[in-house]
Amino acid sequence: MNHIRPLPSYLVHRYHGWKATTWTENRVWYRRLADEGQRPRAMVISCCDSRVHVTSIFGADSGEFFIHRNIANLVPPYSPDGEHHGTSATVEFAVTTLKVAHIIIVGHSLCGGVKGCHDMCTGQAPELEEKSSFVGRWMDLLRPGFERVKDKPEDQRLRALEKESVLVSLENLMTFPFVREAVEADELTLHGLWTDIGAGGLEQYDPASGAFVPL
Amino acid sequence: MNHIRPLPSYLVHRYHGWKATTWTENRVWYRRLADEGQRPRAMVISCCDSRVHVTSIFGADSGEFFIHRNIANLVPPYSPDGEHHGTSATVEFAVTTLKVAHIIIVGHSLCGGVKGCHDMCTGQAPELEEKSSFVGRWMDLLRPGFERVKDKPEDQRLRALEKESVLVSLENLMTFPFVREAVEADELTLHGLWTDIGAGGLEQYDPASGAFVPL
Amino acid sequence: MNHIRPLPSYLVHRYHGWKATTWTENRVWYRRLADEGQRPRAMVISCCDSRVHVTSIFGADSGEFFIHRNIANLVPPYSPDGEHHGTSATVEFAVTTLKVAHIIIVGHSLCGGVKGCHDMCTGQAPELEEKSSFVGRWMDLLRPGFERVKDKPEDQRLRALEKESVLVSLENLMTFPFVREAVEADELTLHGLWTDIGAGGLEQYDPASGAFVPL
Amino acid sequence: MNHIRPLPSYLVHRYHGWKATTWTENRVWYRRLADEGQRPRAMVISCCDSRVHVTSIFGADSGEFFIHRNIANLVPPYSPDGEHHGTSATVEFAVTTLKVAHIIIVGHSLCGGVKGCHDMCTGQAPELEEKSSFVGRWMDLLRPGFERVKDKPEDQRLRALEKESVLVSLENLMTFPFVREAVEADELTLHGLWTDIGAGGLEQYDPASGAFVPL
Repeated sequence: MNHIRPLPSYLVHRYHGWKATTWTENRVWYRRLADEGQRPRAMVISCCDSRVHVTSIFGADSGEFFIHRNIANLVPPYSPDGEHHGTSATVEFAVTTLKVAHIIIVGHSLCGGVKGCHDMCTGQAPELEEKSSFVGRWMDLLRPGFERVKDKPEDQRLRALEKESVLVSLENLMTFPFVREAVEADELTLHGLWTDIGAGGLEQYDPASGAFVPL
Repeated sequence: MNHIRPLPSYLVHRYHGWKATTWTENRVWYRRLADEGQRPRAMVISCCDSRVHVTSIFGADSGEFFIHRNIANLVPPYSPDGEHHGTSATVEFAVTTLKVAHIIIVGHSLCGGVKGCHDMCTGQAPELEEKSSFVGRWMDLLRPGFERVKDKPEDQRLRALEKESVLVSLENLMTFPFVREAVEADELTLHGLWTDIGAGGLEQYDPASGAFVPL
Repeated sequence: MNHIRPLPSYLVHRYHGWKATTWTENRVWYRRLADEGQRPRAMVISCCDSRVHVTSIFGADSGEFFIHRNIANLVPPYSPDGEHHGTSATVEFAVTTLKVAHIIIVGHSLCGGVKGCHDMCTGQAPELEEKSSFVGRWMDLLRPGFERVKDKPEDQRLRALEKESVLVSLENLMTFPFVREAVEADELTLHGLWTDIGAGGLEQYDPASGAFVPL
Repeated sequence: MNHIRPLPSYLVHRYHGWKATTWTENRVWYRRLADEGQRPRAMVISCCDSRVHVTSIFGADSGEFFIHRNIANLVPPYSPDGEHHGTSATVEFAVTTLKVAHIIIVGHSLCGGVKGCHDMCTGQAPELEEKSSFVGRWMDLLRPGFERVKDKPEDQRLRALEKESVLVSLENLMTFPFVREAVEADELTLHGLWTDIGAGGLEQYDPASGAFVPL
């Protein structure tokens, strides 16, 4: 594997700084987390986007959140066909092994994946419709959301679709038997959030009004 | 969707605190990141484990890292079969759209997913061998790594398998044509790390010695 | 130009070492920075003093900070008289072209320029009062700061004047219309720091208390 | 001064990391540098550009280089008119007080200031010709260099002008009596470098051939 390279040294320096400060301050707790295992209260599913940091937004301690990040914070529907379903594996592990009390889906403004879905569904991105496009096939998961927003005025459609990425995931979560059972046994609650990167806003889905409402 | 609940209030409080402090300190930059888009230098693929935080370890600024987190930081082999491949979609987006300069795979000690793979491969976890086990099917990706470490003494095997989760991902990355092309064009470099949660250690894979070496 | 000499060979050797290591580690990112241009988050104005290195203190990556260094980290007041104002040009470029989100002024202990200003203002350095003294004329910029600290006990005066070099610059920055507009439009924030070279300390100006406070 | 803001916390964290590692490792030397003063061997004049780091390129120790950074690494001609000449003050301080043995001018590829000068001199940037443009008035210093390259083919002109920014500075340095005297007494040598950001190249001016030659 001669294509593997040393880490850039500015990251090595920063790591040593972290080791000498943050790690040292927290070492007793980190050792307990190592000895006793993690016990996160919540699972968070958010986007890979470099501008979205739920640990920062929620001041999360080490050990608090089990975090899955993928393109556009999507959860596929339950499909136990024996294939590699990375996202479904994270949900299964969180709910059946870690027994998290909450699953929080976090969508965000300016999502490149959602934009890709929008362009694909409106015929502006034929390359995403190719069988070989992983991003395209992944964003197919959001097509049911696109169907619900496609008649909105163009200037509202993208934002609406970003929020649909949260709602579709929440719907799909409930197709997993172990999720539904945990929810029905009141051992798990589900939450839908959407964050505005530029404005630092945070809205949550309110089922009563069927809308996202600022916190 | 009456199973959707309001966010626990302690998280709402923390969000408001973040908005009043961290967001306020960084608001000008966050707005520019919103207006001009992200330009992350690196993609990081790490585990969902609540005890692993690469942004903390590397003092990363918002906008620095595009982060995918899944069980055991695994990348599957290239398989353009038209199915939903969430991880492959993140790699495709990072390399072909964002054109990141680095992909950094970060494994870690005490990985529950790796432990599951080990138990499954040694016959101690028949439930993971079921077709319906998403975790089991996902961890199948690490079987080639298990084959390479299975003859090690039992007390070294698990740690060796954790490091194999990094190496298998690095190998699989090179099966993606767009990754291989970017590496060969010297537009992308790959890096393999493994972190010890309790001790705060960080090791990187050194291809010359074929071993992980402390930073 | 027969007064131009070859670079001392120890620097040539070090450059070749850097090329083979740091440049190689970072080459993909450096090329992108070259192809796409810089997008620094902050401008730093610090002293030329060989003992002050903000990139080291802040673990800065290449491309993170736009850095101006002059004697005593001074910014002159806005004066669009058509003369060569090197410092004003750096501020103009940072704010109007690069649109940096922060300007950080960094003063430091044991500043030779500040000491010169002190000696000049107390009549102990007549040579700095000459019209031909570039250092003297440059340090005239700090005279308003000297007026504010001249009645302090002698053993506190120099340190107070070092901090005034930060405050005078922050005040003068606000005399530039494009700085004031960007600050008022919340597109730019200003920060004042002072570092203790021997002790490695770092203090920031806190407008609420009107004092520098350790970080 | 209610426009002064707290430093973004990611920089505070990085500072604490630096304090605990780099500072700690070097504390004895930093204290000596504080107690005995700086004694830099060389002065470096380079650009503010965030992609140019001479301390990195030359692996410079704290205390080694007295560094002035301005737009396009320019030195104005000697002009003791009693005005604020920030750059001339740095040269005066370096040569007469610190008695550095070398002054190294470092130009670079893709210089925004040089580009501005080029556009101004070719009539493509009338805004830079305004009396109120600090960048324009500063870049006037490079007009003699533009005159020497203006007849080159367009695709070579910009690079040639970047190198002229080094040569003009070297010429202007010799108009300072204290620089000329130190050079003639063989107490000071001058050096001209140009670095290619993307390729990591470094060239030095060779007076024999009148050209920049790779190191």
